Amino acid sequence: MSSSTIETSAAFTAAVVTVSDSSSRGERADISGPAVAGVLEKSGFKIVAREVVPDEQESIQNILAHLSDKARLVVTTGGTGIAPRDVTPEATRAVCDRLVEGVVERMRAESGKKSPMAALSRAVCGVRGKSLILNLPGSPAGATESLQAVIDLLPHALELLDGNTRHSQKLGST
Amino acid sequence: MSSSTIETSAAFTAAVVTVSDSSSRGERADISGPAVAGVLEKSGFKIVAREVVPDEQESIQNILAHLSDKARLVVTTGGTGIAPRDVTPEATRAVCDRLVEGVVERMRAESGKKSPMAALSRAVCGVRGKSLILNLPGSPAGATESLQAVIDLLPHALELLDGNTRHSQKLGST
Amino acid sequence: MSSSTIETSAAFTAAVVTVSDSSSRGERADISGPAVAGVLEKSGFKIVAREVVPDEQESIQNILAHLSDKARLVVTTGGTGIAPRDVTPEATRAVCDRLVEGVVERMRAESGKKSPMAALSRAVCGVRGKSLILNLPGSPAGATESLQAVIDLLPHALELLDGNTRHSQKLGST
Repeated sequence: MSSSTIETSAAFTAAVVTVSDSSSRGERADISGPAVAGVLEKSGFKIVAREVVPDEQESIQNILAHLSDKARLVVTTGGTGIAPRDVTPEATRAVCDRLVEGVVERMRAESGKKSPMAALSRAVCGVRGKSLILNLPGSPAGATESLQAVIDLLPHALELLDGNTRHSQKLGST
Repeated sequence: MSSSTIETSAAFTAAVVTVSDSSSRGERADISGPAVAGVLEKSGFKIVAREVVPDEQESIQNILAHLSDKARLVVTTGGTGIAPRDVTPEATRAVCDRLVEGVVERMRAESGKKSPMAALSRAVCGVRGKSLILNLPGSPAGATESLQAVIDLLPHALELLDGNTRHSQKLGST
Repeated sequence: MSSSTIETSAAFTAAVVTVSDSSSRGERADISGPAVAGVLEKSGFKIVAREVVPDEQESIQNILAHLSDKARLVVTTGGTGIAPRDVTPEATRAVCDRLVEGVVERMRAESGKKSPMAALSRAVCGVRGKSLILNLPGSPAGATESLQAVIDLLPHALELLDGNTRHSQKLGST
């Protein structure tokens, strides 16, 4: 089962978006974006794009809409907290057809065991067409920990979005 | 306490709706509906209706609205995933006055221990008038596991919807 | 770390609102309000207001809007269940700019270990300006247990709302 998952996910394309005012101005190195891309590649995803955008809702929405046409999985890092400039969840909700609450519930429950403050992440996960968009926190540790907590769900979710529902019924899950 | 819960729930009526294109066309036996009804009966609910409908939002809404007038608890099975034809949560939201997020949070957390893919269920639980509507996944195992995870909450919830709030205050819970 | 948290939270103001028809009419002593205020004071918050209002959405909204100008943290107790008169979550949603789902997810997960019926709480946590509004259940035990489950998050959340995001990045959390 785990080997077939890895083979399957090898086919899936992914894009990573770093949301950060300072990184977009070149004032701060983007460490989280490459870290997230590394975790995805290790799980068999093919990274087709990496972008850095400021914490502006419209910029985030535009890049998410654009990238979800090019990649089956679009992962953001940054802008999920409660500070006034944190607008990644709002931008993601705006471009998604539907949300998948259980994915972020698990993300917060799992990463909350290591970092209690993970409960303050307002990250969402949603579907846009046949692509999945997933928000991660901005720090390198928070982003990779959160991604690890749900990465096993992602290939299966992308198969379901392809209309491959037989698989899901066999797994007895959704 | 547990014996009084069983006695109380004996008074509650329940309806089960299987949401499935193939079962509604008679191409596939409905196994989940009877399985869910069996679990409810064992817990003291009186099954007053069982229906099978296709994965069409309007059909689901109509049957939920109709059944919530006849039964205090309406349980659906199927159509909660993320595939394009999964619209049971949307139909349920459309007919409910308010949602009870904690019920499905617990459902996903508990069944996620056995089946990680349970996180992909978009099931909702909501109130319509004095009735409770609860979505379950479509597979027999997923549906019964998910129902077992929250079945102890249901009689108490139905008492609260009757305006019996004293009980809840004694339990110190809501 | 824990000592610095206590020092920091010492600066934060808090208000407590008891939502209860019977207490607002003087027919029932308000036990939960003082209990909640006691827990907050022990954690270093400065209580600047305590109010009792009936289970009326407009009354609750008005008091929340008023108090969030006077206190950084506004905590309610009562009216979070599913009974017809429970409207505190609706009132809170109406006055908040954004919700912080992870805080109430943790609250329900933690207090659900002691009181399974905590899953029926529809409590929300949200941001209004630079203040945080948090709903707790109505019973003294439910309210204090729920508050204890998330109280360590509150000073950090209030710092983030002040725009102090560097701290959060160091913690690698949001």
